[in-house]
Amino acid sequence: MAVGKDFFPKMYPVPGFKLGVSSAGIKSLRKKDLIIMEMIEGSTIGGAFTKNSFCAAPVQLTKKYMYSTESRYLVTNTGNANAGTGELGKKNAEAICQSLGHIAGVSKEAVLPFSTGVIGEHLPIKKIIAALPSAYSSLSEDGWNIAAMSILTTDTRPKGASVQLEFGGKKITITGISKGSGMIRPDMATMLAYIVTDIIIDKQLIKEIVSNAVDTSFNRITIDGDMSTNDSAILVATGASRVNLSELSDIDQNKFLSCLNDLFLSLACQVVQDGEGATKFVTVNVSSGRTQSECLKVAYSIAESPLVKTALFASDPNWGRILAAIGRSGLPNLKVEDVEVYLDDVLIADQGGRASSYMENLGQAVMSKDFLSINVILNRGDLAGTVYTTDLSHDYIKINSEYRS
Amino acid sequence: MAVGKDFFPKMYPVPGFKLGVSSAGIKSLRKKDLIIMEMIEGSTIGGAFTKNSFCAAPVQLTKKYMYSTESRYLVTNTGNANAGTGELGKKNAEAICQSLGHIAGVSKEAVLPFSTGVIGEHLPIKKIIAALPSAYSSLSEDGWNIAAMSILTTDTRPKGASVQLEFGGKKITITGISKGSGMIRPDMATMLAYIVTDIIIDKQLIKEIVSNAVDTSFNRITIDGDMSTNDSAILVATGASRVNLSELSDIDQNKFLSCLNDLFLSLACQVVQDGEGATKFVTVNVSSGRTQSECLKVAYSIAESPLVKTALFASDPNWGRILAAIGRSGLPNLKVEDVEVYLDDVLIADQGGRASSYMENLGQAVMSKDFLSINVILNRGDLAGTVYTTDLSHDYIKINSEYRS
Repeated sequence: MAVGKDFFPKMYPVPGFKLGVSSAGIKSLRKKDLIIMEMIEGSTIGGAFTKNSFCAAPVQLTKKYMYSTESRYLVTNTGNANAGTGELGKKNAEAICQSLGHIAGVSKEAVLPFSTGVIGEHLPIKKIIAALPSAYSSLSEDGWNIAAMSILTTDTRPKGASVQLEFGGKKITITGISKGSGMIRPDMATMLAYIVTDIIIDKQLIKEIVSNAVDTSFNRITIDGDMSTNDSAILVATGASRVNLSELSDIDQNKFLSCLNDLFLSLACQVVQDGEGATKFVTVNVSSGRTQSECLKVAYSIAESPLVKTALFASDPNWGRILAAIGRSGLPNLKVEDVEVYLDDVLIADQGGRASSYMENLGQAVMSKDFLSINVILNRGDLAGTVYTTDLSHDYIKINSEYRS
Repeated sequence: MAVGKDFFPKMYPVPGFKLGVSSAGIKSLRKKDLIIMEMIEGSTIGGAFTKNSFCAAPVQLTKKYMYSTESRYLVTNTGNANAGTGELGKKNAEAICQSLGHIAGVSKEAVLPFSTGVIGEHLPIKKIIAALPSAYSSLSEDGWNIAAMSILTTDTRPKGASVQLEFGGKKITITGISKGSGMIRPDMATMLAYIVTDIIIDKQLIKEIVSNAVDTSFNRITIDGDMSTNDSAILVATGASRVNLSELSDIDQNKFLSCLNDLFLSLACQVVQDGEGATKFVTVNVSSGRTQSECLKVAYSIAESPLVKTALFASDPNWGRILAAIGRSGLPNLKVEDVEVYLDDVLIADQGGRASSYMENLGQAVMSKDFLSINVILNRGDLAGTVYTTDLSHDYIKINSEYRS
């Protein structure tokens, strides 16, 4: 099950960036499971990665290589996460870089490896190396659609976003794909995203930009609070447009960054909406807080509460559970009398209890929607924070308890 | 569903402490739903309460009264939590204290109120006040069993523990009851515990003792991470034995405290085992950490991971999920290569991956048990911490999504 319509947009190619796929037969013989991406020389790259201490071997290697030399290739396999695989896992990831580097005539450090799939099994390294030449020979700027399909594991649909902007008559493209079923898949080390633009972004600046973009997108989604060992989001700037972000006017810089952030957010929300078991997409806004961090604390407390999530699944406007989640978020000196809680624009609770104007049928109507928001006003400051989540359904338990049996 | 056998122990009366019940007809006419407990003059009392900012009106009042004057009565109603009820909620709680104080000839501040049940509805205050005289007139030192039954809401079985000790030929009793279905009940503001002894404990000391006892019992159980608005644990020392804890030898003091702590832990574990939907009782031990707090952080990360909990439900020895939960617990500089993970005494993971000696059938055998432990050795210090939890089953979703519909 997934929320909302299955809509895959038109994907604009990004000059200076090519994608190619092949089948290494990791899980099944026919599935495309190996994706190579090539960046033109002079491209810059930034990344954000899982903070899990048990992060996968390819993530460790990518973090090491990324800023040590100019990156030229990204190589991704599905079907196996190469996580929880100890020393051999690192050697296998390195062997892939070595082999693709050899084919492409670059150093192994210019190749960044990514893996997604089952945790705790060793990569079928010979099969993967054997399939590299075929993926390499299929590299094309038009490879976005097939790459979007190929990086999927248990996702039910491909995830993509693409936009074009004009600055001084010159066209700029931003295109990206992501994969992940909302971190809910049992052993599937889950979220990957690749976003590419042809604007010129300075080496240092791109790190900052990707970190900001991830902070308001992939870092704001939660399905079950579990963090994967393989989560990575990569931003590449090929510079092929010859437009330099740093030379644009402030207005145009903001326009570009805002489009980029929106695109990150779109890819992140597509991951949430494809969470297996998800029947609702829920935006939790917390505002009028003293700091953004306290707003996010409350928002996560609501978004991660199993009791709130099962109420969402049941379309039950159970305001008591939302109040309890706010109350246990640990905000110092929170005056509960000041807190207002809305479902979309229906006031459900204030003054420490049910709002006098509230009628169950109004809350019920909001809770029955596929897309809805929970809005909390703390009334003690000027800052705000937003988190995106889903409900918790029978299918969640089913998928996660039956997967390996 | 509940884990383990339905076993209710012999309950020793505690001299100086009486219990009485009656039916106020809060939810149904026949159920006993009102419990009064009377402490002999000179008793001391300590309590630990929910840290939820939206804490219920009776909890607010009990905290205010408890240390302002000598407490003489505890009055508890089931069927209604009097939480999320604003100003009227406080007035209603106060009215109960006033009324019982009048009957018993004590000030309202000598009466501590407790409520458990549905959140967000106002107490049927007239019915409760009308039922007070009948509960009062039934006060008896032998009232433990009927009180243990009467404080239940959606629990499937009563929870009690009782022990007798001897110091210098004098008998000391500790007896307690608790209620709660593992914090998993939708709107049920859940956990209550009353533990009573006839030893003499100093007014200041009893606060410290209850706080320590709760810290290693009720604060170490987790079903779904949700914290109720009404959770309270109360320790009463009637002093009727004339044995003074402070005058015992160090060995005897430790013996008493260790029995008391065990009794708290037993009552807490009975709550977990009665969690609806629970099919397993799981002890998560984390040892060889630098601090107890970092051990508990890892233990909670495992115990609250939906992926670990669904694997437990499926009896699936899914070590990848346990590693991922350890990895995301946020310990600084955790060397994953040093971490060892056991299911009971079966080593499943070390050196960053699956243990070479591990065979699936061994892990499977442990995971199939109703009572099992997950043991994590961090190998970076001397401290340890333990948390108790359950699995996450279809029934959890069923109960929590269908409750109000």
